[in-house]
Formats: sequence, C-alpha cells, structure tokens
Amino acid sequence: VSDRQRAAAGGPPALAEIFAGPAARATPSPIARTLELVERTPGMVSLACGNPASEALPVTEIAAACAAALADPERALQYTSPRGLIQEALAAHLLRDGVRARADELLPTTGAIQALALLAHALLREGDVVVTEWPTYPVNLASFRTHGARTIGVPMDEEGMRVDLLDRLLSTLAHDGQPPKLIYTIPDAQNPTGITMSRARREALVETAARHGVLVVEDAPYRRLDFQGEPLPPVAALAREEAGSEARVALVGSFAKTVAPGLRVGYLLAPSALIDAAVLLKQGEDFCTSGLLQLAIASLIQDGTVARQETRFAAVHAAKLGAMQAALETEMAGLPVRWIRPRGGLFLWLTLPEGMDSEKLLERAIAHRVAFIPGRAFYPPEKAGPDGVPARTPPAVHTLRLNFSYPPLADIPRGIAALASALREML
Amino acid sequence: VSDRQRAAAGGPPALAEIFAGPAARATPSPIARTLELVERTPGMVSLACGNPASEALPVTEIAAACAAALADPERALQYTSPRGLIQEALAAHLLRDGVRARADELLPTTGAIQALALLAHALLREGDVVVTEWPTYPVNLASFRTHGARTIGVPMDEEGMRVDLLDRLLSTLAHDGQPPKLIYTIPDAQNPTGITMSRARREALVETAARHGVLVVEDAPYRRLDFQGEPLPPVAALAREEAGSEARVALVGSFAKTVAPGLRVGYLLAPSALIDAAVLLKQGEDFCTSGLLQLAIASLIQDGTVARQETRFAAVHAAKLGAMQAALETEMAGLPVRWIRPRGGLFLWLTLPEGMDSEKLLERAIAHRVAFIPGRAFYPPEKAGPDGVPARTPPAVHTLRLNFSYPPLADIPRGIAALASALREML
Repeated sequence: VSDRQRAAAGGPPALAEIFAGPAARATPSPIARTLELVERTPGMVSLACGNPASEALPVTEIAAACAAALADPERALQYTSPRGLIQEALAAHLLRDGVRARADELLPTTGAIQALALLAHALLREGDVVVTEWPTYPVNLASFRTHGARTIGVPMDEEGMRVDLLDRLLSTLAHDGQPPKLIYTIPDAQNPTGITMSRARREALVETAARHGVLVVEDAPYRRLDFQGEPLPPVAALAREEAGSEARVALVGSFAKTVAPGLRVGYLLAPSALIDAAVLLKQGEDFCTSGLLQLAIASLIQDGTVARQETRFAAVHAAKLGAMQAALETEMAGLPVRWIRPRGGLFLWLTLPEGMDSEKLLERAIAHRVAFIPGRAFYPPEKAGPDGVPARTPPAVHTLRLNFSYPPLADIPRGIAALASALREML
Repeated sequence: VSDRQRAAAGGPPALAEIFAGPAARATPSPIARTLELVERTPGMVSLACGNPASEALPVTEIAAACAAALADPERALQYTSPRGLIQEALAAHLLRDGVRARADELLPTTGAIQALALLAHALLREGDVVVTEWPTYPVNLASFRTHGARTIGVPMDEEGMRVDLLDRLLSTLAHDGQPPKLIYTIPDAQNPTGITMSRARREALVETAARHGVLVVEDAPYRRLDFQGEPLPPVAALAREEAGSEARVALVGSFAKTVAPGLRVGYLLAPSALIDAAVLLKQGEDFCTSGLLQLAIASLIQDGTVARQETRFAAVHAAKLGAMQAALETEMAGLPVRWIRPRGGLFLWLTLPEGMDSEKLLERAIAHRVAFIPGRAFYPPEKAGPDGVPARTPPAVHTLRLNFSYPPLADIPRGIAALASALREML
C-alpha cells in the first residue's frame, strides 16, 4: 500500500504534512537557488555567488596543511572533543586584531554559519526579537526566523548601522517588554551592501548595546579583506577593551573568504557560559568539527598562510572591483542607478529607481547571460522607524547585489554590459 | 560596568539566564564527559569511547584521496550546493546493500549525527513522540529531547527491538491521539547493546511500521562491521523492496567506523520531500558539507577503500572482541555479571546484579585505571510495557557499555582485570 493509497483511504497524513515548525518555516536561500540556475546555464557570467576568487585559492598550501595534519592521525582522523582542538591557534589569530581570548571563550565550528546557528539555537525561543541591519545576510536571517524569531532591521548609511535609531529601537522594545535577544551586525564590508562600519559607529554600537544590556553578535567573514589595508578594530575588540570577558559580545569568525569555503572551518568567540551552551548543542548537531580540517586551519594560521592570503585575496578582489567600477561607470552612464563603492569584501550593492523590481530585472538579465541576487531576500520583515518604532515594511525590491570576487576578471565588463542592456530594456 | 554589577543594580538578566529552550534542555553527553576525563588521566585504559581501531585507519588512502580531491579545487574548495556533490557515489555504495536510491533521495551530511539532527529539526515539534530502542544511543536521544520530543523506549531481546511490544505501543499511542513522528532503530550491532536485529524482526518492523504509517529511521553506523561476514539486509532495503520510494523509511549512513570519524561525512537516504526539507535546514546549519571531504569519500568508495576497510576494521575489532571475551571469562569467573557476545560493531553491554549502580562502579574503576560508559544515559524516560502502555521507568543503572574497538589489543586484558577488581570491591 503506497502513501498515496493510504492517504486516499483516510490513513495517516502524507509525509510532507508531518513536517513540523522549523522545516515548515525554512525558506530556500535565494543564493542557493540562483547558483543552481547558474550551474545549469553555460556561458552565464555569475555575479550572484559569495565565493572568493578561485585563482587565489591557496591549493598547494592547503594540500601541504592536510598532509601535515594527517601526520597526526589520532587527532586528525578520530573524533575530537566537541570543544575542538585548535583554540590556541584561534586565540593567536584573534590577537592580531587586538582581541585577547581564553580557550574557554572559543569554539571551532563547521563554518561560520554553524557558529551563528548554535547561537540561534542557544538563545532564541518562539517570538524572541533579533535586531539586524536593514538589509542583511539572508542565510542567517533565515536561521533566526527558522527559530521563530521576530526580526527587525535598523537602516544603514555610509557609516553602517544607524546606531541612533538602534538606541531608540532598543528603548521602544524595552518599554514594550520585548528586549531583543541579540543585535546581529556585519561591520566589515557588509553583506550585501559592502558598507564598512566606521570606527565612531562601532564605538557607539558598543556603548549603546552595553547600556541596554543586549548581546552584540559580530559576524566577521570579510575581516581583513580591506582594500585600503587598514581594517578597523572588531566590535568585539572595542567591547572587550572595556568589559573584558564580561562584555556581552560574540564574534563569528570565518576562514571561508581568506582560505577557502570548502574547508568549512569557522569559530565562535563568546562568553564562556555561551560557549558551554554551544558545545552541548554542537554535540547533537555534528558532534565535532573534522579534526583533519581543524588541524589544517591551525597549520595555515601558524605558517602565515592565512595572513598572506588575506592580502592576496584583498588584492585580487580589489582589482576585480576596479574592473566592475570602471564597467559600471561606462555602461551605466546616463542610467538611473547608484551604488556605494565598497572598501573591501566581495559585494557591490546597486540601487535602481524606486518602483523597479530587481527580480524582474533578473529574468531579463539571465536572458542576457548575467546573474545577480535580487535585493528582496536581504530584508527582515520589520524596520525601525526614525522614532525607534518598528513597523512592517516591504523589502526595497529596487536593489540588487553584485559579486565581484568570483567571476574571472575578463568576464566582469561583459557581465556589467549585459546587466546594462537588461536594464535599458526595462526602462 | 560589568554584568555582575549591572545585575546587582537590577539591570538586565545574567547572560546564562537568557538561554532559551534548546540550550536549557541540552544535556552534556556522558561520552564527551568521560572522554575528557580519560584524556586527562595518563595510563587509563579507555573502554569508554566509540572510536574505531586507530591502527586500522586508512591514513595513506585518505591522504591520497585528499590529494585527488584537491586536483579539482573548484569543487573541493569553493562552496558546494547544499544538496552536495556525491549522491552518485553514495547511490553506488548503497546498491551493495540492495538499496536502490535516486539522487534526490540522498543528502551528504556533516557526519551521520547531522543527518539525524536534520531529521529531528524537520519533523519534531514540542511534545511529539519518538520511539527508540530501550536502551539507545544517547547523543541522538538527547537530540530528540532537545527538540522537545517525548521519547519512549521499546525493550529488546537477543533479536533486537521487541516488535510485538512496538505494535501494541503504536496502537496505544494512536488511540491516545499521539502517533509517534518516527521510530528510531540501530539494527546492526546496536549502540549500546551490541545486539543485531534478526532478519525476521526486521521484516516484522517494516510490516508493523507500514501498517501504522509511521516513519522508520534506521541508523546504520556499524553496517557491514559484521564479524560473521554476513550482514543482514538494511531495514531500508526491506521497506523499499515493497513500497519503493514511497516507503516511510530513512537511513542514516556513516563512514566514521568504516573510514574515519575525523572526516565527518555521513549521509541521509529519505523520501525526496524529506530530503528537500533537510536541504533547506542544512543551509542554515552549515550551508554545505566540505567539498574536499565529500570528494575524498567519493574517491574512497570508488577505489574500493571503503569495502576493504569494512573487512579490515571488522577483522581488527573481532580480534579485540575475542581478547575481551577471553578476559571477561577469566576475570569475571564467579562474579554475577552477564553479557551478550555481539556479532559486530564496537560495543559489549555488561549487566551487573540489579541494585548495583554502574556510575558508582565507574568511580572505583577509574581509581583502577579503567573507564567505561555507565548505562544510565542510554535510557529514554519512558518504556513500553508488555501491554503496550508507556510508563515512566527508571534507567537500568546496573548496566554499562564496554568498547572493544579502540583500546590497544594488549590493554584489553589489563582493562578487564581492573574492572573485575573494581567490581569485587563493590560486591
């Protein structure tokens, strides 16, 4: 008897009907969807993904690091403690950014996304409030929402999150008995806007969050991918300068954009009580992060590869951004679009005239053999108003994200020209 | 102002107080706890862990597989689709066991634990019922409970889960309007009991679950680690023989015990609707499994290493079980303990006289320099009675799990002698 026959006979519900809360609420990442489309379409210039430049991947160094790790098969190939093996190397890595961390404040994770997911698991209950930037990274936004969180975005300007509005929002939420569980920020070359939060704004964020007693979660995948070679201090460094280990700050670290996404090693820096909770949850999620890949990352930190790769990726990405900027200036001349030139990272955020829908533009763009990520998915459902009152706000659908790090340099002018053609058709 | 000062001044709650449902409910794995103790104690014979034999790890083959994977840096080192890269290799691997699977029914995961966690995320809501064996594997049991599930164990005999009791339990639960979301079973060399479910029992399980319309989740980490060299057909194969892709069965596969735990690659075979839900959730958990490690596993499947290693690990583990069996017969002669000799896997389950507490025995055993896992953690809070009515039942604390795969062969007699000394002191 098949499920269908059984259901027709009034038997148990169809399998898809038994999916509970989280799965029912999970939404497909627009990034994953567009990437699948790009993979299936030959000749497409993809400005859609979040990959670093393939030509700058340290393949030889990674091969050597894997070989070195396998020289210690007991640690590389057996289970490791869920707490991980490489906290010392991670502490040394963070010290370069002025962050002093103890081993019990650090957890190696299976990519930075797992670090964020563990925080969400640990902290969020149905209806809890999470404050993010407006717009923000959709995969983690979806993770907050999968855990039942109410997400509210704070508008940004060229210096990053508008902390004055955040302050008012936190007062409003406290007054309503709904203080947020955490403030999620990507201060360096934000995804998707490319905006880097200014030093003054970082200091204001730390002061404001501390005054309201709210945890700041700093997501730092684009850390040190600064094209001016002058990365600003991490929010975590500023917060811990004052309050040390008692600071209500967590930092989610990544090696995906400075070594390689495929190694899936990231880390969480957080107060030790939160690390303890994350370790317990990690046991049930994947028990431990691959010892082999943990040891490989530690060896790449120790032999200087990570520091060298930061510079190398930044140089390659800066050259590609230069090509994109030049192409935009040429191809978009006279068209009603604007953008902020980022000082680092992987993304450039393009704003079309209000009233245009970048999802419609994508359909045309794909016909012209270029892909990007439409802005819609980057917006939480609520936005903090000028008075600090959150309100349901439609996404700014006249925005879109362009990636400049992954496409071959030579494809960028062609991609931007194709985008301009699609845009001209729409206007 | 520190958190403590703020809390004293009536400010926001202490950080640990803001942990929500899942973290507050997560419990430390007794395995992780005991492993940390063992690591800190020199000279300890550990019969506590769940590692395969270090001396049989295919280090050279893994090094070659990593090097081969890195020859394709684009797939090994960039992000992969959350759906994974190696479904074809996994399908070929499953075909050896008579399971025919399509790519859309397969998902490579970050270890088998993630496959189980994704199922739990997808299916479980607060108060949902999960049926397991009594006793069962504590990490996954904790995962069910972290998701708010009510867990009920079905007693086992030498043929595995008592499916007659399961049938009655399912009727009772259906009558109470509480049909379980899933039945979780480890049919091959179960953790912790070492019992292999008989073929007749497998068939009865498939028939019973299908009749009640309940999903069976088969956890198969010890698959083909059969010392008789005659592994029984997977429950999934029997279920799909009849109902094909419509069968309500999921199989959680692992390479941790046949290749190496440190690679953290496992997989999920499930109806495609459930795979789709798992893929969405996986994006928020770790986005994708390491391309490097996926490709390494695929190459180890294709070059025959996996099949060779199944035989090699089985032989090494069988020799160690032989040593343990001989030591038990000698050292425990005249002592009131009993055990079932497993036909595969990693574990031997020891039963002490009723009234004894194996946690107390562990304290003494550690003084004698031997460690094991006490039985307490392996029991769900409720047990199905002979009438099929579930009842809260205290764990059988007079049981304990001995691992025979990991300790060096020469240490096993010493470990069992130490255990017997500790036991004699207790009696």
